[in-house]
Amino acid sequence: MNLSRAQRIASGCPGVDAVVIHNASSPFLDPLFWYVTEQASGTFEGSFAVISKDGSLDIVSSPLEETTAKKGLGTVHVYETREERDSLLSGLLKKCDRIGICGRSVTYSASEYIRKIGTADLTDVSSEIADITAVKDAKEISDIRKASDISSKTASRIPEMLRSGMTEKEMARMIDSAMRSDGGTGNAFETICAFGPNSAEPHHRPSDRKIRKGDTALFDFGSKYGMYCSDLTRTVFLGEPDSVLRRAYEVVLKAKNAGMLEMYDNAPAKNADIAARKIIDESEFKGRFIHSFGHGMGMSIHESPSVSSRSDDTLKEGMIVSAEPGIYIPGIGGIRIEDSVLITKNGFKELTEFDEMMTVI
Amino acid sequence: MNLSRAQRIASGCPGVDAVVIHNASSPFLDPLFWYVTEQASGTFEGSFAVISKDGSLDIVSSPLEETTAKKGLGTVHVYETREERDSLLSGLLKKCDRIGICGRSVTYSASEYIRKIGTADLTDVSSEIADITAVKDAKEISDIRKASDISSKTASRIPEMLRSGMTEKEMARMIDSAMRSDGGTGNAFETICAFGPNSAEPHHRPSDRKIRKGDTALFDFGSKYGMYCSDLTRTVFLGEPDSVLRRAYEVVLKAKNAGMLEMYDNAPAKNADIAARKIIDESEFKGRFIHSFGHGMGMSIHESPSVSSRSDDTLKEGMIVSAEPGIYIPGIGGIRIEDSVLITKNGFKELTEFDEMMTVI
Repeated sequence: MNLSRAQRIASGCPGVDAVVIHNASSPFLDPLFWYVTEQASGTFEGSFAVISKDGSLDIVSSPLEETTAKKGLGTVHVYETREERDSLLSGLLKKCDRIGICGRSVTYSASEYIRKIGTADLTDVSSEIADITAVKDAKEISDIRKASDISSKTASRIPEMLRSGMTEKEMARMIDSAMRSDGGTGNAFETICAFGPNSAEPHHRPSDRKIRKGDTALFDFGSKYGMYCSDLTRTVFLGEPDSVLRRAYEVVLKAKNAGMLEMYDNAPAKNADIAARKIIDESEFKGRFIHSFGHGMGMSIHESPSVSSRSDDTLKEGMIVSAEPGIYIPGIGGIRIEDSVLITKNGFKELTEFDEMMTVI
Repeated sequence: MNLSRAQRIASGCPGVDAVVIHNASSPFLDPLFWYVTEQASGTFEGSFAVISKDGSLDIVSSPLEETTAKKGLGTVHVYETREERDSLLSGLLKKCDRIGICGRSVTYSASEYIRKIGTADLTDVSSEIADITAVKDAKEISDIRKASDISSKTASRIPEMLRSGMTEKEMARMIDSAMRSDGGTGNAFETICAFGPNSAEPHHRPSDRKIRKGDTALFDFGSKYGMYCSDLTRTVFLGEPDSVLRRAYEVVLKAKNAGMLEMYDNAPAKNADIAARKIIDESEFKGRFIHSFGHGMGMSIHESPSVSSRSDDTLKEGMIVSAEPGIYIPGIGGIRIEDSVLITKNGFKELTEFDEMMTVI
């Protein structure tokens, strides 16, 4: 029998008697709450999920979320007042000497509350949870695949959307609308559109800069589907680019392919970054790849594993990671090409669709 | 001279030698980082902002964000390695005996890091910061006003968008696309569309339920403009509704107006909730208003003040809050009407535009 997600967390965190997840107020909602409850809905501000040693799951929630809470996994306990909430939680935690929390997502305030209400020591089980959630189950892979399909479809429309004189902000709006019309449930992150020299800044935010002939146009975006994220980047040119950018494009493409060849079950994650960086650093663009090769994604856009040269992570079958080398030349422009891949036994499967031809519009 | 935001925080947190803000990874980015730097751009994952006692501001950031960081306020310190980051931070904090953190937004992991690197005691200054940021400055009011205009414009189009047979998901997509096309920078929160009995659940998430004659149709949404949120709710009817819903609509409207009359500079925030709840509880819908009257908004959709019966907050000129009473009848439907208002010296100014006529499409 397959283990539930709560059971996987319980068995992956053997040093604690329970794991407590607290969902704070927006924008600090914790995707872990949705992960363990397998909810597709609700806000659950202020709700708690308690995973016991045996993998059983209890939810403590306000009446506002009661109907929705009962659609998900777990035994739902509803409180009317703060005192009822406190007593429900202390009842659930009374046999615990050591409570696990996910330190990377729980707020300091919530951790203090859990410490007091549980009268127990806290242990940060962030890395255990990151390792567990990095490997996606079938439902998660299916959702990320759908999100990736939506992003790919939008990417394929960029050549017809982009017209001389358009601003970065206008293009970002068109991309977001297209993803939403194609069935996406929202943006996985704020869409990056960067034209010309602006593309030399990896995290540029869309401005009123208009596109001009000869500009690079870099688009980094991703739709959500359900609760899950996708991520891709395309760089195209409006008119014939400067030859240095054309060369950079070829190097990025080569680096991406070299990196992806290092991606398979049980491969050290850093190898992909090292292989891609080697290609770039042996070219005329040495030192211009100023971020890491990739990252895991799921309900959050940045998850384990880290695919950087310093990473200690190991790629595992079922992980979904981005492959996104780039070259950034200040004052001129940047090139980044990014696809998302599913790690398989012997390699990877691309989830986003990419045509290797350089696109000159 | 006007104080900078960092200076306001420094003087509002007199018990600490510095306030440290840590911006974690998405989705745990901390709006406070953007607040003090007055940035309109960037991701700044892993960056720190340090506010000293004198109100000076230091930013510790990776090279990836260097260009953007320098566009905002604060002295920017760039690190290449973790060791450099640690030494930059411990240098900035070396004279501190007591460091303030915002416990409601900082993660447990980051708080542990700050405690160790600063070799100082931590004090949670969440409530001090919430009080300071609840009162908006001119730039913030202007951005929330623009966000509200975009949401109002989309709301005015609902009657022409909504057609018999459409699903909640389809309508949510249309609303999101409309906000984006009208100049919004994204969703302030996930759009709620709830038809018929689904509208009895305040936080219903859009499903494949189609709208039918006689249904209530509840839409709760808000655009962002720049970094800032807006929030409104409209309930309309497709065809003549059941008379109980028509009566509920009238009561909600009366409750909203009664609540808003209690909103002015120096009024206890709870008075608005109490006044609105009184109207509903004295009607046939007693006990059906199952959430609070309103909440502050800003870069986050839920901020101080809390406008609930239990709130200890005081309304202040310059706060922006929602006014959103509702009546929810399980199995039949729900009515909620919500506008966002700016608190003024003698009352309030509506930021979202609302036509008090009941809309039957």
